[in-house]
Amino acid sequence: MTNLGLPVPPGFTITTEACRAYLREGGLPEGLDEEVEAHLEALEGRMGKRLGAAADPLLVSVRSGAKFSMPGMMETVLNIGLNDESVQGLAKQAGDDRFAWDSYRRLIQMFGKTVLGLEGDLFETAIDDLKRGKGVVSDLDLDAADFQRLVDTYKGIVREHTGGDFPSDPREQMRQAVRAVFDSWNAPRAIIYRRQERIPEELGTAVNIVAMVYGNLGMESGTGVAFTRDPGSGQQGVYGDYLQNAQGEDVVAGIRNTVPLQRLEEIDPASYQRLLEIMKTLEDHYRDLCDIEFTIERGKLWMLQTRVGKRTAAAAFRIATQLVDQGLIDMDEAVRRVSGAQLAQLMFPRFDGGAEKKTITKGMNASPGAAVGKAVFSSERAAELAGKGEDVILVRRETTPDDLAGMIAARGVLTSRGGKTSHAAVVARGMGKTCVCGAEELDVDARAGRFTAPGGLTVQEGDVISIDGSTGEVFLGEVPVVDSPVVEYFEGVGGTADELVQAVDRVMRHADERRRMAVRANADNPEDAARARRFGAEGIGLCRTEHMFLGDRRRLVEDLILAESDEDRRAALGALEPLQKSDFVGILAAMDGLPVTIRLIDPPLHEFLPDITALSVKIAVAGDEAEPRDRRLLTAVKRLHEQNPMLGLRGVRLGLVIPGLFTMQVRAIAEAAAERRAAGGDPHAEIMIPLVSAVQELEGVRDEAEKILAETGVEALIGTMIEVPRAALTAGQIAEAARFFSFGTNDLTQMTWGFSRDDVEAAFFSRYLDLGIFGVSPFETIDRSGVGRLMRIAVEEGRATRPDIKLGICGEHGGDPESVHFCHEIGLDYVSCSPFRVPVARLEAGRAALSGGESETR
Amino acid sequence: MTNLGLPVPPGFTITTEACRAYLREGGLPEGLDEEVEAHLEALEGRMGKRLGAAADPLLVSVRSGAKFSMPGMMETVLNIGLNDESVQGLAKQAGDDRFAWDSYRRLIQMFGKTVLGLEGDLFETAIDDLKRGKGVVSDLDLDAADFQRLVDTYKGIVREHTGGDFPSDPREQMRQAVRAVFDSWNAPRAIIYRRQERIPEELGTAVNIVAMVYGNLGMESGTGVAFTRDPGSGQQGVYGDYLQNAQGEDVVAGIRNTVPLQRLEEIDPASYQRLLEIMKTLEDHYRDLCDIEFTIERGKLWMLQTRVGKRTAAAAFRIATQLVDQGLIDMDEAVRRVSGAQLAQLMFPRFDGGAEKKTITKGMNASPGAAVGKAVFSSERAAELAGKGEDVILVRRETTPDDLAGMIAARGVLTSRGGKTSHAAVVARGMGKTCVCGAEELDVDARAGRFTAPGGLTVQEGDVISIDGSTGEVFLGEVPVVDSPVVEYFEGVGGTADELVQAVDRVMRHADERRRMAVRANADNPEDAARARRFGAEGIGLCRTEHMFLGDRRRLVEDLILAESDEDRRAALGALEPLQKSDFVGILAAMDGLPVTIRLIDPPLHEFLPDITALSVKIAVAGDEAEPRDRRLLTAVKRLHEQNPMLGLRGVRLGLVIPGLFTMQVRAIAEAAAERRAAGGDPHAEIMIPLVSAVQELEGVRDEAEKILAETGVEALIGTMIEVPRAALTAGQIAEAARFFSFGTNDLTQMTWGFSRDDVEAAFFSRYLDLGIFGVSPFETIDRSGVGRLMRIAVEEGRATRPDIKLGICGEHGGDPESVHFCHEIGLDYVSCSPFRVPVARLEAGRAALSGGESETR
Repeated sequence: MTNLGLPVPPGFTITTEACRAYLREGGLPEGLDEEVEAHLEALEGRMGKRLGAAADPLLVSVRSGAKFSMPGMMETVLNIGLNDESVQGLAKQAGDDRFAWDSYRRLIQMFGKTVLGLEGDLFETAIDDLKRGKGVVSDLDLDAADFQRLVDTYKGIVREHTGGDFPSDPREQMRQAVRAVFDSWNAPRAIIYRRQERIPEELGTAVNIVAMVYGNLGMESGTGVAFTRDPGSGQQGVYGDYLQNAQGEDVVAGIRNTVPLQRLEEIDPASYQRLLEIMKTLEDHYRDLCDIEFTIERGKLWMLQTRVGKRTAAAAFRIATQLVDQGLIDMDEAVRRVSGAQLAQLMFPRFDGGAEKKTITKGMNASPGAAVGKAVFSSERAAELAGKGEDVILVRRETTPDDLAGMIAARGVLTSRGGKTSHAAVVARGMGKTCVCGAEELDVDARAGRFTAPGGLTVQEGDVISIDGSTGEVFLGEVPVVDSPVVEYFEGVGGTADELVQAVDRVMRHADERRRMAVRANADNPEDAARARRFGAEGIGLCRTEHMFLGDRRRLVEDLILAESDEDRRAALGALEPLQKSDFVGILAAMDGLPVTIRLIDPPLHEFLPDITALSVKIAVAGDEAEPRDRRLLTAVKRLHEQNPMLGLRGVRLGLVIPGLFTMQVRAIAEAAAERRAAGGDPHAEIMIPLVSAVQELEGVRDEAEKILAETGVEALIGTMIEVPRAALTAGQIAEAARFFSFGTNDLTQMTWGFSRDDVEAAFFSRYLDLGIFGVSPFETIDRSGVGRLMRIAVEEGRATRPDIKLGICGEHGGDPESVHFCHEIGLDYVSCSPFRVPVARLEAGRAALSGGESETR
Repeated sequence: MTNLGLPVPPGFTITTEACRAYLREGGLPEGLDEEVEAHLEALEGRMGKRLGAAADPLLVSVRSGAKFSMPGMMETVLNIGLNDESVQGLAKQAGDDRFAWDSYRRLIQMFGKTVLGLEGDLFETAIDDLKRGKGVVSDLDLDAADFQRLVDTYKGIVREHTGGDFPSDPREQMRQAVRAVFDSWNAPRAIIYRRQERIPEELGTAVNIVAMVYGNLGMESGTGVAFTRDPGSGQQGVYGDYLQNAQGEDVVAGIRNTVPLQRLEEIDPASYQRLLEIMKTLEDHYRDLCDIEFTIERGKLWMLQTRVGKRTAAAAFRIATQLVDQGLIDMDEAVRRVSGAQLAQLMFPRFDGGAEKKTITKGMNASPGAAVGKAVFSSERAAELAGKGEDVILVRRETTPDDLAGMIAARGVLTSRGGKTSHAAVVARGMGKTCVCGAEELDVDARAGRFTAPGGLTVQEGDVISIDGSTGEVFLGEVPVVDSPVVEYFEGVGGTADELVQAVDRVMRHADERRRMAVRANADNPEDAARARRFGAEGIGLCRTEHMFLGDRRRLVEDLILAESDEDRRAALGALEPLQKSDFVGILAAMDGLPVTIRLIDPPLHEFLPDITALSVKIAVAGDEAEPRDRRLLTAVKRLHEQNPMLGLRGVRLGLVIPGLFTMQVRAIAEAAAERRAAGGDPHAEIMIPLVSAVQELEGVRDEAEKILAETGVEALIGTMIEVPRAALTAGQIAEAARFFSFGTNDLTQMTWGFSRDDVEAAFFSRYLDLGIFGVSPFETIDRSGVGRLMRIAVEEGRATRPDIKLGICGEHGGDPESVHFCHEIGLDYVSCSPFRVPVARLEAGRAALSGGESETR
């Protein structure tokens, strides 16, 4: 910053190297205190003042130089150097007793909270008590004597809660503050946050120590924050807040009301003009929206800190393209500046911005989306009302695994406790269900079937509420939901008049130009396939065939299972084949000219049968009057019942054990392709065998399939899922029989971790996230060390065997930004994801290509 | 053989190289026919005769030179060179028309069966018809004209079934026979057999072509097999069979009755003496029991083939030590000459050899052991009678997955259909249950509840039968079972008077001296621990703690699960702790001075609760009168119910989610160790954490455990199972928190293959074995390419992190010979297996050490 000729207070920096050594060696470097002392002496020399001297003291701030702010990390301690003597020197220096004692009590308060780790409430309560005693409401009404008394109170708090005195030695204050910054890098919350946000441990933090400038030196002083653009919309202009006679933390803490930054033009026109010049300088330098902390000390402007600023998703797209138009960045950089997560946010339906809304409260935005429904307070009730076709919002103090059924039934979930890794948050995200959690102002009484909000508002079971999972807002009554204009753009409706849509359009076109990987969609029916195509999918990476056996056709699968002779079995298969064929004709038509990967039936057959417990109870209760077909079904259900169906008779195993099942499907595919071709279409079916763990399994099925293809004169690639660890470990062999691999990372994650998603996500993932065992669920983002390592093995060894093998992914990770980068890195040819995630994957594939071999998203 | 100066007919060999080229390139080498021709011409030159010439013809045999005989492989075609002309020349040459036509029909018969792949029955029926027509019973009663007629019949059979003529060109006959040998190396049955027996593909076969010598030249000619020792007992002596006026296949086919080899002393004393000399020469040369094929042509002895001979388990041990005493081999070689599989056979209880036995039939020895019980014919009935404490043998035509419950309930399983890879065989072996399968003479009528045997014997449900899974024999009534003298020796009772026991003792002592790996046992109670120690275990590698929560204590676990408050939970844990402690005291005492690895609780808690379906039905039927505790239990069962319990809330996950559970166990271990030490004992407890997939899981539990150990002043290594694929893939990280790894290869196999053993073994393993998808169940022998690769990764990367890490295995594979070799190869420190397998593991660990780095068992 000093390079830009900005007005920065003199100071020095302890570099991140000390922090890295700390991480490596488990302790701060031996010479740290000496290094700090040497720097400090140089500063004292330059300034002609001694830190915390009794007369004309130098005071400093100690501030973290971390690139990102993170929970648990120590940010700033101001006014270091004050003690019972130097406070007098400061008063004399400034000619202001009140200012000096105010600064002193601020030091003890900030030092107590951040260095000594005391509760902030202790100090805030003391000042509130003082104000109440005096009958005033503003800090401005407190005088020097009040602050002097507060210093005594604060010292007492430190003594009582730490067993020691607040350190009066100025150098000791500074050393402790410096150490506290480094220590706080390893605060448990910071560690977990870094894992979740994937900020590398070894990034480390620096510590900046600068001479104090004072915003609390009277009404000609003040402190503020400024943004070079509106972080909400991306518009250029003057955005920020200013507070007279205050120090930094007052602005954020909201103790007094700030004024809009524009008001500074009246209060201090010279500083205001200077600030505008500096904002331009910074934006030109960083070529991005900057946020700025500044202080005005008796009319002189000082710059304290700047970082590239946070912004909303819409602003991110607008700013990126605006900067291109201003010539500050190119389109490559614009694509790098936005993210798939931001694009995804823009695609969720939202509450109508123009509608009248009655806000009840605001909680945490745990899982995005907009949900409206009747409030219900138990899982049972949620399932019951949803069963009658009603929309419900499940409201709980916190959820437990017992609430799973209710969460599934509800449109959204609202809790009054727990953060973004709480059970409700984790499970809702896993389900893609709207969730607001930790709405702490609500008092939820599940037994009474109601919650109360601040101001005495009570919501009873059955009252309609609306929750916004993207903002955390909770509204009373039904708020109308509007579709996202970005989705309308992808759908090809709504045009590109909107400025945001224009920005998205430019970014997406450029990402498409740059990306190496193709993007396909997972779709099982013509409607989804057509939608995916509108969203930019270049084929179908996963067309599941088992979904085609549900509904009315379930009975045909039951017939197949109940078949007692070869003829019965063949008859059942014969009845299914034309239905399958027509399914495939529809999908091949919707994706005409593009590849469609059809996976042969995967789940165990008992999934098509009634639940064993429900059926057993039904028959037991009916006694002699039980239906004969029910009895036969129960026998079949018992025969097919499995301890661990995920690891049972499914996928290729079914194909090898049940004669005719896979051949029926392959024949339906071949005949559908032939029919499409006869009708002038251009079908590209690919046949995918699931759950292969040994090449021998694949060979048997492939040989039979090739025979059928040859008979019908249809060409189709035959390949396999890589979703069992052994398939990855023996990919070199499997590639001999497979023309393509598609990584089924859902199952691969389940088996590599030994996790059944159905069982573990609700049971203990929130606990695991809290414990930091993982930073993010391995079902959201590919676990690089475990699952990712298997994928690398399979890619390398598969390609070694068959250099032109096609490699893709069709697990849900195919639509996850970080995972898309990983897929790019290891050299996959395509990713496939749900239709709605296709634009996200396109964008991230472009960003991955622009970030070079190594992922840039850390 | 020619090196030994033995009387071998002149001939030549096409080496295995041609076969290897065939395997590599998918076709026989271009120059093969030319190579054969060149050799043949040289032979013709040496002999002064032309192959199949009209006058004085040379005939040859074509014989596989494979090191092992295997199903589907072509062994021998004799008399090559005969056609309608040369048969006349042969008749003149030998002065024997009958001999010449007999030889000719033999050629067509053998060629038809082995080269052309026709059913042997076709030819045998024709000869039977001829004999019946003439009213004679022996081939010896057929004359030249009969054989001439048979040649015509046989030619007709070839024409009818192949659409072509039997090749009359002698060179064409030879070329086809040579190719057929090579082709048969890739016969499906041969491939599957090699997979099962782990004979490498690339071993390949040679082809030997030698001039014919004739055992069917009248009563002064003959053919026989000889063994240099009794393959049953190992005694040196003259063992074998001889058949006058016959060719090779007659001896094996049992068409006529052979005579004991000793009779040759009377028939042809000179040849007999010469044979005895040769047998001595061969034994001295091969330093092992040899089996020999020979032919006497008009008083002249010719040696045709020798291989190291098959033998019984008891003979293997006796022969090995006898050869040491004779100075032919050393003890290292003796250990190499026996196998763990043989030792295991000697350890099964057997039927009393002296008891009177009424044999019903003989089937295949599918799973060893001796079982006695009432015959039952349905799974339900088996379970019902077993539930009343009766011993039953389940008799089925063949078993299906539906018979699983009955197989579990029965003492043994008997089927009339299916081979060693049939469902019954595979599942019984998996359970370690005695099984005889494919007893084809039995006619099983399950509906009528009986089977009938040859001779009209009928066994009804409830009749007692005895089955010998080691021999395949089935007896009527109860045959007394005797313990193995080898087991008595290991148990330290019965002494070493028996010659077999002496041999075993010598071999075991030497194996122990040579082995690098330690052998431990899996044992959960003091009795098993003590037994394992008598069997030579050097510690416990796996002490499961969940077995300690069964029986009466189940109620305490229910209390823990039903606990609704922290106090209730603590009370339940408090009640369990002293019980756990006393369990550990007992085991540590039994293994005093040796390491005892105690695994903290592993299975999901619902395993301790009633079955959800049974309980639901019970409560539904009871209606309003259902027990309140049952209702509470049902709620808990439902809450804890898991889709895939194997991949659910268990192992370390339980420890992290249920406060106090693991700490209770660790405290019980620490206090037990302290108590043992106070009593003068030398306890070495090791604490093992199950189901770890990430180092972070382990760290949390380890930190807590170390705190407890520090409090109690007990030292104990803390380590982890490696049983989840991800644990192996991240072993480098996990080793930072683990002092030892123990490979849980059961779960590791399940997750690496995506197999739930409970579900898949019965459902499709027999089909997979038949299809050759694997040669042996991966639950029996470690799958090297998949599971083994993960183990190698974990060993290498674990040791890289922590060079002194202790590495072992505690899955069932720890007692499997082939897997023990693999563990040696990858450098494990110990294997741990069930107490009964400890001697097998000791022996194989010794053999592995003697075979160098690479396993010798192929």
